[in-house]
Amino acid sequence: MTPDVKALLFDTFGTVVDWRGSLIAEFTAWGKARGIKADWAALVDGWRGAYKPSMDAVRSHPERGFLTLDDLQRQSVEPLAAKLGITGLTAADYDHLTLGWHRLRPWPDSVPGLSRLKTTYIIAPLSNGNVALLTNLAKHAGLPWDLILSAELFRHYKPDRQVYLGAARLLGLRPQQVMLVAAHNYDLAAARACGLKTAFVPRVTEYGPHQKEDFKAESDWDLVVADLNDLADRLGC
Amino acid sequence: MTPDVKALLFDTFGTVVDWRGSLIAEFTAWGKARGIKADWAALVDGWRGAYKPSMDAVRSHPERGFLTLDDLQRQSVEPLAAKLGITGLTAADYDHLTLGWHRLRPWPDSVPGLSRLKTTYIIAPLSNGNVALLTNLAKHAGLPWDLILSAELFRHYKPDRQVYLGAARLLGLRPQQVMLVAAHNYDLAAARACGLKTAFVPRVTEYGPHQKEDFKAESDWDLVVADLNDLADRLGC
Repeated sequence: MTPDVKALLFDTFGTVVDWRGSLIAEFTAWGKARGIKADWAALVDGWRGAYKPSMDAVRSHPERGFLTLDDLQRQSVEPLAAKLGITGLTAADYDHLTLGWHRLRPWPDSVPGLSRLKTTYIIAPLSNGNVALLTNLAKHAGLPWDLILSAELFRHYKPDRQVYLGAARLLGLRPQQVMLVAAHNYDLAAARACGLKTAFVPRVTEYGPHQKEDFKAESDWDLVVADLNDLADRLGC
Repeated sequence: MTPDVKALLFDTFGTVVDWRGSLIAEFTAWGKARGIKADWAALVDGWRGAYKPSMDAVRSHPERGFLTLDDLQRQSVEPLAAKLGITGLTAADYDHLTLGWHRLRPWPDSVPGLSRLKTTYIIAPLSNGNVALLTNLAKHAGLPWDLILSAELFRHYKPDRQVYLGAARLLGLRPQQVMLVAAHNYDLAAARACGLKTAFVPRVTEYGPHQKEDFKAESDWDLVVADLNDLADRLGC
């Protein structure tokens, strides 16, 4: 089914790392140490809620220039905190919270699965996170990428086709030689429309109690796997 | 001297891998198996001689668009072979020779040195090789990069300042937080002019009997080391 695939590209937030669990745990511990009382889960959920609209604003107004995800996250956190009644944070505190996205934990199967897949395939993130974020995240979480591929390199956010096709072009591969691995059906649909192969991995606790979609594959993706170790099994790694 | 440095970027051809020895050995074995008699050392030396002028043509004619190093190498090898009286090669043969640049061997200290440096620093190539070339090369040679940084990402070749400053920007670092490691004084001079830190590592056999320069440091670079293991020693890794 996939004999021609040379590179596996991974959506990262939610697919490879547990952003919600990581940020809530880190901010709760940080707030406690600083004596700041806050509903950190609400902050994290609200922050992620602002994520797509902030990228869509970049996608629909290219004339304003490209802003990195770090920039967008930094812009959205301060008004959100105010709205949630979290007060007394300095600019340095907001910078620290924003850099929390560089310190996320992998799902338990991510590092062993990626390490196996790396023996046979080129592996890289293909994420809306910026290059610095993805690089720092890989160092922190031990993700053994061969290279970092980011929306930032193409100055477009997923699901714009420039991201998927740009990644294949940089790798010197045809789209069908590249497989996107993601926990989000919309991402796979966009990759497939560009000719990439697709693999779905469910991450049904990504949004905690607020998860509303992506409980299962919503199309006949090339592969549907239980986790990244299962992907390695299926690909014979 | 370098407490603020977070990322070490490495010139690659000559600094990390032995392009000349690798290509001569590979092409000699390949020619023998195919019954092609040729002065492969002359081809490799002539090919490398065409390298800088071909990049300079891109640098001085930006209106013609950016061509990758793979493209440039493929363009220059065919007339060079003709000039050297190497005949009977097909287009597929020239493609194969061009991809020889993706299969170079590291110097003996490169992999152990980089592996030590990676524990403390972000490590990446900063090379005129294109992303696909550098990615395949890393897989082939076992170079443990955190990410691939290439002139291609900036659509400029070194020593254009866009390459050095673009790399720092993608990493979210100030220029002085980035150190270029190179065996070529001109590369370090360009990096220093952009505010980067600099480390010289001599590779006095890079050009074999034709080596004419870069036997030693020609300026007071921040570090002058014997090899990449020595660099790891000096940086306490």
